[in-house]
Amino acid sequence: MTEEVVVIPGDGIGQEVVPAAVDVLQATGVDFEFVEAAAGDHVAEDGGDPLPDETRELAANADATLFGAAGESAADVILPLRDAVDSFVNVRPARTYPGVDALKPGMDVVFLRENTEGVYAGHEARLTDDVSTLTRVVSQSASERLAEYACDFAPEGFTVAHKANVMRETDGLFRDTVVDVAEENGVETDTALMDALAMHLCLRPEEYGVVVCPNLAGDVLSDLSAGLVGGLGLLPSANIGEERALFEPVHGTAPDIAGQGVANPCATVLSAAMLLDYLDYEDEADDVRDAVEGVLAHGPRTPDLGGDAETSDVTNAIVERL
Amino acid sequence: MTEEVVVIPGDGIGQEVVPAAVDVLQATGVDFEFVEAAAGDHVAEDGGDPLPDETRELAANADATLFGAAGESAADVILPLRDAVDSFVNVRPARTYPGVDALKPGMDVVFLRENTEGVYAGHEARLTDDVSTLTRVVSQSASERLAEYACDFAPEGFTVAHKANVMRETDGLFRDTVVDVAEENGVETDTALMDALAMHLCLRPEEYGVVVCPNLAGDVLSDLSAGLVGGLGLLPSANIGEERALFEPVHGTAPDIAGQGVANPCATVLSAAMLLDYLDYEDEADDVRDAVEGVLAHGPRTPDLGGDAETSDVTNAIVERL
Ligand SMILES: CC(C)[C@H](C(=O)O)[C@@H](O)C(=O)O
Ligand SMILES: CC(C)[C@H](C(=O)O)[C@@H](O)C(=O)O
Repeated sequence: MTEEVVVIPGDGIGQEVVPAAVDVLQATGVDFEFVEAAAGDHVAEDGGDPLPDETRELAANADATLFGAAGESAADVILPLRDAVDSFVNVRPARTYPGVDALKPGMDVVFLRENTEGVYAGHEARLTDDVSTLTRVVSQSASERLAEYACDFAPEGFTVAHKANVMRETDGLFRDTVVDVAEENGVETDTALMDALAMHLCLRPEEYGVVVCPNLAGDVLSDLSAGLVGGLGLLPSANIGEERALFEPVHGTAPDIAGQGVANPCATVLSAAMLLDYLDYEDEADDVRDAVEGVLAHGPRTPDLGGDAETSDVTNAIVERL
Repeated sequence: MTEEVVVIPGDGIGQEVVPAAVDVLQATGVDFEFVEAAAGDHVAEDGGDPLPDETRELAANADATLFGAAGESAADVILPLRDAVDSFVNVRPARTYPGVDALKPGMDVVFLRENTEGVYAGHEARLTDDVSTLTRVVSQSASERLAEYACDFAPEGFTVAHKANVMRETDGLFRDTVVDVAEENGVETDTALMDALAMHLCLRPEEYGVVVCPNLAGDVLSDLSAGLVGGLGLLPSANIGEERALFEPVHGTAPDIAGQGVANPCATVLSAAMLLDYLDYEDEADDVRDAVEGVLAHGPRTPDLGGDAETSDVTNAIVERL
């Protein structure tokens, strides 16, 4: 069976790391057909919409999409794309690797970020000259859907992040719903205030396995964890919906190094491994992860990891290990 | 002149560290009169309001108040107290000290946290069985007041944290107002997305000096920085209003060690130093900070810093160095 995957490199190093991940996917032996689509600043600069309807439609109809990064237009591209695949959870693993310097060696945490609401529901208004408002939305149904996914993902239990001491109604609903669903499923949970959790992740990340978060909390806590494991160059992510999914590195366009051929492709290759998992090619997914780990441990490495290899050297080394 | 200071120890280790800080204040030679007031879980357990009207009134009429910590009732105590002193900024320095293990030695960042609005403005509703909302409020006037304070505080320039790529109207107003006020005052700024900043603080905190934040962003970024400098035991804070101010350690009640006499008093003593600064006893404030630094460098140290000293040992050592 041919697996059709939509590929949206986007801007900056997206143009370098997405083709690298495609090379790796092709080397797995799975029968892929890649359909490339455009999005990002470069489309907007040519007078188009940063997310053209055609790209949106392709993602909305594909089983799986691989996205790179977008520049200034990031929010205008990635938020509608997450919506187009109807993704309700953003899965963001943050772990360290042998061979990679990390502030917290031994960290291995997966964030399950609510992906549809919170402040991202985005109802804003300028009420007066002086006052603006944003309506943050938290629903029981979205919290339930996330919690059910979390119970499948982490039957061994998970932590629920929240700020319900201040956002009593909204984060209270989030926390209580997630905890209740877990209880019904016989899954253990503990809860943590997001501010305290930000500190505890810096001090004792080994105490955390899976963390279920409201949307913005997941955004911040996963980026902070990128800092603890050695930078954004290693963090993949998966936006999972009921019927489709979108995979993307957590990093952005890295304008400082874009076009030089030295971007670290690992975050995007690891996102491609999540795509393989999602399409039920679990062995191939494991092979890709093993290959990335081997390369991280033994080189070659790109400059962000202290090496002087190019993107293509790293990609080839991953492919050779498959 | 006698300086009247309201003192609210609160719950848990608040009962231990606030008296310690009072001892240090008394040893500075400034003529203080301390008025003690009650708040926290222990008041609620006795059938009262966690923040009794009388305590609120005392803080609302004092030049300066020193607060310890409150337990479950923390939000019901500290948020109305911040409001009672009409504080518009929460000043939170996060720095490392010689002699104290830190994940990021050399970090020295001060967060200026907006203290009146954002999600803390707290208009929440349960719209339907399924849906709850919170109205986040950002005003130009509050952003201006904060920005003017920041320009005085950091004429050398500062960073503005925001999430205006998603919260375009509200954080856009915050970011643009703060940047505009700084420009009018000839103060340089740069801006940073709060998620990216959480990562950059872990990787390169030495690139940041003063960071101006919306309320919740300041809450999370300062707690995360506590993790980077070695824990909450060292972080003081000042809630500054036009005419009064409230000083408090960033840490909570630490129920695991409360009552044992081993709590680290440094965060509260450093908060007392900020109180001295506020009342224009700058020399005495510097003396207290120097004494704390000396004790941190040479001991005695409480168990949280790897020592086995008691609160009173550390307090006495600070007093001896004055
Ligand atoms: C670009 C931005 C809208 C996005 C987000 O906030 O979700 C990014 O920070 C991310 O985490 O993928
Ligand atoms: C207790 C809570 C309401 C408070 C806050 O969120 O401001 C605390 O986390 C703090 O930072 O002082």
